[in-house]
Amino acid sequence: MRLAIDAMGGDDAPGPIVQGCMEALALDPDLSLVLVGDEPQVLPLLEKVDYSPSRVNFLHTDQVVGMDESPGTAMRRKPKSSINLCWSLLAEGSVDGLVSAGNTGAVVAGGLKTRRFLEGVHRPGIAVTIPTMTGVSIMIDAGANLNPKPEHLLQYGMMGVAYVKQVLGIANPSIGLMNIGSEDTKGTSLAKETSLLFRNGSLRDAYKGNIEGRDICRGLVDVIVCDGFVGNALLKCCEGVLDFVVKRVAMELLGNLNVERQKAEEVLFGLYNRYHHSEVGAAPLLGIDGVCLIGHGASDARSVRNAIRNAKIYTEVNRTILEEISHGIRTTSGAAGT
Amino acid sequence: MRLAIDAMGGDDAPGPIVQGCMEALALDPDLSLVLVGDEPQVLPLLEKVDYSPSRVNFLHTDQVVGMDESPGTAMRRKPKSSINLCWSLLAEGSVDGLVSAGNTGAVVAGGLKTRRFLEGVHRPGIAVTIPTMTGVSIMIDAGANLNPKPEHLLQYGMMGVAYVKQVLGIANPSIGLMNIGSEDTKGTSLAKETSLLFRNGSLRDAYKGNIEGRDICRGLVDVIVCDGFVGNALLKCCEGVLDFVVKRVAMELLGNLNVERQKAEEVLFGLYNRYHHSEVGAAPLLGIDGVCLIGHGASDARSVRNAIRNAKIYTEVNRTILEEISHGIRTTSGAAGT
Repeated sequence: MRLAIDAMGGDDAPGPIVQGCMEALALDPDLSLVLVGDEPQVLPLLEKVDYSPSRVNFLHTDQVVGMDESPGTAMRRKPKSSINLCWSLLAEGSVDGLVSAGNTGAVVAGGLKTRRFLEGVHRPGIAVTIPTMTGVSIMIDAGANLNPKPEHLLQYGMMGVAYVKQVLGIANPSIGLMNIGSEDTKGTSLAKETSLLFRNGSLRDAYKGNIEGRDICRGLVDVIVCDGFVGNALLKCCEGVLDFVVKRVAMELLGNLNVERQKAEEVLFGLYNRYHHSEVGAAPLLGIDGVCLIGHGASDARSVRNAIRNAKIYTEVNRTILEEISHGIRTTSGAAGT
Repeated sequence: MRLAIDAMGGDDAPGPIVQGCMEALALDPDLSLVLVGDEPQVLPLLEKVDYSPSRVNFLHTDQVVGMDESPGTAMRRKPKSSINLCWSLLAEGSVDGLVSAGNTGAVVAGGLKTRRFLEGVHRPGIAVTIPTMTGVSIMIDAGANLNPKPEHLLQYGMMGVAYVKQVLGIANPSIGLMNIGSEDTKGTSLAKETSLLFRNGSLRDAYKGNIEGRDICRGLVDVIVCDGFVGNALLKCCEGVLDFVVKRVAMELLGNLNVERQKAEEVLFGLYNRYHHSEVGAAPLLGIDGVCLIGHGASDARSVRNAIRNAKIYTEVNRTILEEISHGIRTTSGAAGT
């Protein structure tokens, strides 16, 4: 597998990015990389490490999108940004995918501009993993598409199902639509129309209807479908409430304990790290013909290494997305013909 | 003060509703109530208690909106529901306000139909209290208005400010707009246009820009403004994650402790109840000319009693809302004239 790596993306880039790449190369002899970034910053890092030049190419650009920069502005002012060059490499078929821990909006914008979507896909969506009482759920979309149409949300259901089948190994995943009440008649017109599409489409058996904010961590469904604004707000809300509750528990509990204080501290710390980091891994932008993984801005070498190692499975996910979407199209055409 | 009480609203109505009314009457000699509900269910409860008939009227209806019923359907099929009769009493000036622990959507729908809004108010919004690291924040709207215009969100800011000033006693409240990034250029067109209104209006000094999901519990601002869909999803998400984290902590921590296990259990239980119940109190539908308090479906007698006792302060909140809105209108007209 050959991947383009945005060496400039991430709060501490390029250091941990280059380091993560080296670790991934050591683990997988079939992997080769194109590092895209600013030569004066990246080359000295490469010179310090022992790597095989035949497996690592370098592509220079001094245009770097800031982590808080507006994606629209960045797209106009920095057409040759490291993010956009990664997309160009994918578009011309030089790589199988790209990994960036940079500005999420700019990565998505690059994907929308490149339009290298899987056949039949209307819009890509970001899938994130949420810890639940029973394991994990996938929430899609977490911020790629702020104004989706019902058809986009239906396809997010299909992509989520493909992800869960391939990555989590669940044979018959269930789907819920994020809404503000349990009946199909609740919510915005987007929610109501999406609900009808699910009820009447190829996913009708997997579709369990609406779920509400309080159900997210209950693990009621494997795939939670929502628009990108709501998904992004909810994902960050989960992170914030986890932080809040663990801190409150620590403040109120640890002061009340004596002999077992240290043990309690260890358990709390372990739990916090586990759930906190479950969100830090790279999230796929699904619907792309190729692999696009978006890492957390705070990605360290380990996160980058793991993102690169996980890239392979998304070729399987993509195959399953194509199946789900073509099945959906066949089913709909069939129904229309009767 | 005279209030209409929806005796049929709530999971266990009318029992705890009537009980809560009696407790509130005992505490406030200036209070009188109109109980609206199904005679065969409510009168036997009233006959069992000792109350002054001069302070309690009863209005019969056998039309009751179910907790999960579609508000639209309920409005058509049950025009004389206990909720709608409460609104009629307010509209004709027989009462100063209403309290219902019934179907939130139906209470809001009754208010939209009655259109007894404070002067200058475009749309009412539900304000809810969220616990934070530094105290509490107010989030508005939590579900009354799923498709707001920027002007509605601006007014929610004004209403939230009035609420925080009067109920929390904060002299100069701060406002944040729920969004998916920190810059004004982020998010949907609704968010961007609302941001401009805040930046250029009477609240410009109070307005602190965007906040994200992870900031909700940090207490960064006193008032969080969002559309009703997002607010409802986030409110329930906070509840769900609190539940999830406390349960996980209990599962992993308590099994690891021996001598101090009971102490830890008490602390966890206390914390859970405190934050869980902070959400159970009645939430005001702000923007109504009069008082409208919407209780949690699971309201017990104590919640109902407290909602009734708190009703008074909302006449002060309403006065401040009128000031904020007329100040906003004056400021805008002034700016346009220069």
